[in-house]
Amino acid sequence: MAKLKVGIIGTGFVGRAHVEALRRIGNVEVKAVVASSLESSKKAAAELNVPGYYADYLKMLEEEDLDIVHNCTPNYLHFPINRDFLEAGVHVFAEKPLVMNTKEGRELLEIIEKKELYTGVNYNYRHYPLVKEMQNQVQKELGKILHVQGHYLQDWMLFKTDYSWRVDPEKGGKSRVVADIGSHFCDLLQYLTGKKISRLIANTKIVYSERKKPLSEVKSFAKADAESAEYEEYQVETEDYASILFELEDGTAGSFIVSQVNAGHKNDLFIEISGSKKSINWSQEKANHLFIGHREQANQDLVRDPSLLAGKAAERCYYPGGHIEGWSEGLKNSIKDFYDCIRENGDPADYDFATFADGQQEVKITEAILKSSREEKWIEIE
Amino acid sequence: MAKLKVGIIGTGFVGRAHVEALRRIGNVEVKAVVASSLESSKKAAAELNVPGYYADYLKMLEEEDLDIVHNCTPNYLHFPINRDFLEAGVHVFAEKPLVMNTKEGRELLEIIEKKELYTGVNYNYRHYPLVKEMQNQVQKELGKILHVQGHYLQDWMLFKTDYSWRVDPEKGGKSRVVADIGSHFCDLLQYLTGKKISRLIANTKIVYSERKKPLSEVKSFAKADAESAEYEEYQVETEDYASILFELEDGTAGSFIVSQVNAGHKNDLFIEISGSKKSINWSQEKANHLFIGHREQANQDLVRDPSLLAGKAAERCYYPGGHIEGWSEGLKNSIKDFYDCIRENGDPADYDFATFADGQQEVKITEAILKSSREEKWIEIE
Amino acid sequence: MAKLKVGIIGTGFVGRAHVEALRRIGNVEVKAVVASSLESSKKAAAELNVPGYYADYLKMLEEEDLDIVHNCTPNYLHFPINRDFLEAGVHVFAEKPLVMNTKEGRELLEIIEKKELYTGVNYNYRHYPLVKEMQNQVQKELGKILHVQGHYLQDWMLFKTDYSWRVDPEKGGKSRVVADIGSHFCDLLQYLTGKKISRLIANTKIVYSERKKPLSEVKSFAKADAESAEYEEYQVETEDYASILFELEDGTAGSFIVSQVNAGHKNDLFIEISGSKKSINWSQEKANHLFIGHREQANQDLVRDPSLLAGKAAERCYYPGGHIEGWSEGLKNSIKDFYDCIRENGDPADYDFATFADGQQEVKITEAILKSSREEKWIEIE
Amino acid sequence: MAKLKVGIIGTGFVGRAHVEALRRIGNVEVKAVVASSLESSKKAAAELNVPGYYADYLKMLEEEDLDIVHNCTPNYLHFPINRDFLEAGVHVFAEKPLVMNTKEGRELLEIIEKKELYTGVNYNYRHYPLVKEMQNQVQKELGKILHVQGHYLQDWMLFKTDYSWRVDPEKGGKSRVVADIGSHFCDLLQYLTGKKISRLIANTKIVYSERKKPLSEVKSFAKADAESAEYEEYQVETEDYASILFELEDGTAGSFIVSQVNAGHKNDLFIEISGSKKSINWSQEKANHLFIGHREQANQDLVRDPSLLAGKAAERCYYPGGHIEGWSEGLKNSIKDFYDCIRENGDPADYDFATFADGQQEVKITEAILKSSREEKWIEIE
Repeated sequence: MAKLKVGIIGTGFVGRAHVEALRRIGNVEVKAVVASSLESSKKAAAELNVPGYYADYLKMLEEEDLDIVHNCTPNYLHFPINRDFLEAGVHVFAEKPLVMNTKEGRELLEIIEKKELYTGVNYNYRHYPLVKEMQNQVQKELGKILHVQGHYLQDWMLFKTDYSWRVDPEKGGKSRVVADIGSHFCDLLQYLTGKKISRLIANTKIVYSERKKPLSEVKSFAKADAESAEYEEYQVETEDYASILFELEDGTAGSFIVSQVNAGHKNDLFIEISGSKKSINWSQEKANHLFIGHREQANQDLVRDPSLLAGKAAERCYYPGGHIEGWSEGLKNSIKDFYDCIRENGDPADYDFATFADGQQEVKITEAILKSSREEKWIEIE
Repeated sequence: MAKLKVGIIGTGFVGRAHVEALRRIGNVEVKAVVASSLESSKKAAAELNVPGYYADYLKMLEEEDLDIVHNCTPNYLHFPINRDFLEAGVHVFAEKPLVMNTKEGRELLEIIEKKELYTGVNYNYRHYPLVKEMQNQVQKELGKILHVQGHYLQDWMLFKTDYSWRVDPEKGGKSRVVADIGSHFCDLLQYLTGKKISRLIANTKIVYSERKKPLSEVKSFAKADAESAEYEEYQVETEDYASILFELEDGTAGSFIVSQVNAGHKNDLFIEISGSKKSINWSQEKANHLFIGHREQANQDLVRDPSLLAGKAAERCYYPGGHIEGWSEGLKNSIKDFYDCIRENGDPADYDFATFADGQQEVKITEAILKSSREEKWIEIE
Repeated sequence: MAKLKVGIIGTGFVGRAHVEALRRIGNVEVKAVVASSLESSKKAAAELNVPGYYADYLKMLEEEDLDIVHNCTPNYLHFPINRDFLEAGVHVFAEKPLVMNTKEGRELLEIIEKKELYTGVNYNYRHYPLVKEMQNQVQKELGKILHVQGHYLQDWMLFKTDYSWRVDPEKGGKSRVVADIGSHFCDLLQYLTGKKISRLIANTKIVYSERKKPLSEVKSFAKADAESAEYEEYQVETEDYASILFELEDGTAGSFIVSQVNAGHKNDLFIEISGSKKSINWSQEKANHLFIGHREQANQDLVRDPSLLAGKAAERCYYPGGHIEGWSEGLKNSIKDFYDCIRENGDPADYDFATFADGQQEVKITEAILKSSREEKWIEIE
Repeated sequence: MAKLKVGIIGTGFVGRAHVEALRRIGNVEVKAVVASSLESSKKAAAELNVPGYYADYLKMLEEEDLDIVHNCTPNYLHFPINRDFLEAGVHVFAEKPLVMNTKEGRELLEIIEKKELYTGVNYNYRHYPLVKEMQNQVQKELGKILHVQGHYLQDWMLFKTDYSWRVDPEKGGKSRVVADIGSHFCDLLQYLTGKKISRLIANTKIVYSERKKPLSEVKSFAKADAESAEYEEYQVETEDYASILFELEDGTAGSFIVSQVNAGHKNDLFIEISGSKKSINWSQEKANHLFIGHREQANQDLVRDPSLLAGKAAERCYYPGGHIEGWSEGLKNSIKDFYDCIRENGDPADYDFATFADGQQEVKITEAILKSSREEKWIEIE
């Protein structure tokens, strides 16, 4: 089987994680990387042991004969890069959110209609083994879904001195916390239930109307060096927090909250689906456990153990029970699922990865949340 | 010091727990009980080792020289009993919710205005030691409150065959889950933050439009004997579930959900208050622990240990750290706080118990939730 | 049914807890208390609302017509008080350890042989509802017991300035941590498995060869006021820590550790019994949960919920699932079980309380542990 | 910097994990693999995308110009392979246990004395970020170590039908559970405290004197297909369980248990070190958390978050706090530490990996445990 040839655009935290994941799944050749300048591209290529590097992604597109490109850039570059590679006939695996607004998303979906191309959005939490198990149980054993709930809470934007490019609407989009992590929650929920969010009402809040933006660049999640750094006041227009009530297409009620200013919560994605026979919840920070709640018997703690799982849930385990798997294995599974589909020339409906159509659904929800909060009323999502 | 003379109306699960708590605080004499019939009153008096018993609470009011009455009856009896004893000059400690609607609540508050009487509502969760500690920390160390959230989830109404008097609006009121347990959450939240809920939007759901009502009586929380029992179809008009977005009087955003159909959650009351310096959360099912979340240091797990606490939080502990305290000690503290105020002829503002004015606030919120869900819009609470 | 007439000797933390528990079980009359002086007895009687008080327990024995006495004194008084009341024909419910050495124990057992008296030792942890459930499952569903293990860890003796009467061998006995809390572990283990510890090897350690003894009295578990207090150096001869390997009478291997110098562990009693079909563990600090471990299915978290339990385990629950019960309910159950046996004129073998014969077994084990550590070899327990 | 050329011997679960880890650390070229036959070597090479494959490791040694070999074979092959590559001047990174007995270990250490070679044993748990943090805190902040304890519990040998090559003393050695996982515990303990175990007493047990050995081959941790398989009775001579009391070289007391027949425990490695200022514990199954226990303040839950850590502990984190890292990152760190030392021509004492001298210490302890259990007495370890 020929190796798939891959280019990586964006070499920050997540771009590097993609490279590592690609090497773990095997039979893939990372041909070239693109960072923000020729110098940084060259440096990243050397560090990552990748042969090619470019300052300009279009030049990489022209010069390398790529099968697949991974778009790991800041949000404002998602649309043009996704578009250019799709138009050139390259499969695209893109970081979330798919694009900055639904107009961009529609344009991408139109391009795809005319092409035989695979598109994936890295909603990686779908690909944890116990999430697959949860999906199986939700759809086969839970009974009628009564209600759903959850949250996605972080604390890396807690202080006024916390700043990243995501705060700037021109780079991150009009929504911050909803687009960044709320979209993960919504994608996961819809994946697990097989039902779309059809209407919602939201309340979003900006905690600091002004943040202190460091005059030099900072990485996401990195500690600000508050003492020595120089700052400018930056007018914040994007939300730090949102709480949302919603209904699924069949009328099932749900709710969730997202925040990046919630002290002590590092990457606290939690989702519970309550059914007429049992309830199931999963927390990313306890990724190796699935809680199954019962009315008439003891609750259950299902640990990630291939010998306790079956089918795809078992296949996505790499180590025996109790040997903790985490974020990197989830990413590996996410990318592997997309590559499996390409190699098998499969139908994405038979796989678990989020397509660009799924990505567009999250963009719609994000826009509806902002609108609902502004207008203080329930919004339907077409 | 003279013993306070007390009458108990209602001898179900919670009425009996009141009697036991009164004996644990000491220097109180339970003079008489009233159950649903003379026979059952006599039986309860014998079992509880109480000298007096009556079929009619007015007769007890007339014949016994009571200082305080405990109203532990079903919701529809809260108003008339509270009213009759207040008018007769007896201090009243009432189970929640205070009354079935705000009209009844206003009438009680008018009576009190003219009397020098103490009134308490048994919002018992205020009185756990770590809840007091949480209040202290929220008000002194948390910084600015950024947002609040929580839930109160149970599963004893999960099945279609689950029924109790609370389902019947004539006995339980127009709201079920919100009045029964949502009111606990709202009371606790407002107690902890010192701020009132001022506006909200809600979505309530009835999971079973019909339930099977047993032809013979059932106790709350008890297992239905599905095989042998005979049922009638009962049209359900009260909610099993509600999700709510709200704002506090200073604009702080919050959300919570309540459900009695959430499998595996037995009495899962959880509340988190997120501040600019730290976040704190407490879960009733882990009552001996307080989680304190930090951004720049390790999170903390404060265990209920009098040597780690101070002031009233320490005083409300009875046993050394690690010797688990729970619901019965919370109830003991709740009643003790009310009795301390009476004995010390104190100002309720200096104590922690919920007054009838606080109880009326929860009734207002309950009405606003039902209205908001019906009208699908934000409702202001005056 | 006539009320049982009870006297209480010792009015510290645990004596007061006994009084409260007696009032919660009902139909008992606490007639008198004995503290360390007439003055303190009078004060305690007033605080506890008990009619009688004595400086001298023999005077109480003479003047009150008691059915039962509760011996809640320091260890060195266990033997003479237990002896005097038994000889006078009064049932005795004694705090643990039963006595200071096996010689005393044998003398008590000889007295009982000739009398028709009930004797109980307050090994209260037997009486938590989920411990009863654990016993049921261990004996009926666990398969063959493969091995057992656990610990009892506290931290109230961590600092050199920590002192209590238990440190003094004349008041506490030659063993400290083993006699005080190790005996709880051994009793619980033997209760759960129905098998006796037959041989063991131990390693005990004294962490501080000298402790600072405050010149004024201190209560157990209370914070020392290190700044202001005056101290004398006290030569420590009793162990702070012990680790033990043992075998049950059928050869099953086990191990446990006890320590009162283990920072952060407040009252951390934990026991696990591993069988050929499943393993079960229970932790006192998570008293409302039972962990059931499986090889071929999800592990289980059984919450204390009367609707999920049956028989005596369900009867020992007072509140619905999720309404946390703890140490006080365990004590209530412990005393109730002893009183039920007396009232029903039952055979102790049909009840769960530890008899004086059981108490003597723990004293034997304690002596064997000290001897084994001294001699560095396995010791048989006859 | 030139890539290091690496050969892998053994392509089971752990050999494949080594290959993946090597690719994640980068700048390494996996040149060839050796499996149990030419056919299986060829298959593994294709699956792992490795150019070379051999049936005979000596042939690989001869034909490939390797810098480093990874010995991922069953225990009985550890000695000859380690020996042959060391003698040929190749650095060796070996799976644990180092060898089957101390005689073999001494022979290896003699070879190394005369060579300038790096040797590493894959005691991978040393290399989790929070283990490094624990080491720092134990050695700098804990005060005097008072006692230590822990366990390593699994359940994959629970049933009589469970079998692997480890049961056969000729392939696995005279010790099973102690050599396999007990050695991990001892290595971790000595690494964390910087002190050696100097004496011990143990009790080992064989749960099934006979096991059913499948007539066809089985993988470790895999589900036996009990229905269809054919078995032979196999006489078991190696232990399923051991409990051990020990002392460190400075007299500190400790204890631990190991079992592979403990239902519900999958890979439950736990270690606690109790000091005079605080206690710290870490559990592999909660690898992203460090528990820090205090007497005079709230306990702490330190989550794996590079912004909360410093030095090597922070460097060993790959993802932001809350993005779960696990077994694969620990292995990556383990191998990376060894490779860093080689590339930097460093002194192993400045790194964290276990050398062959450390590996020999675990073999000594294993032999002492077997001897102590047999002779039922304390054994000194020279």
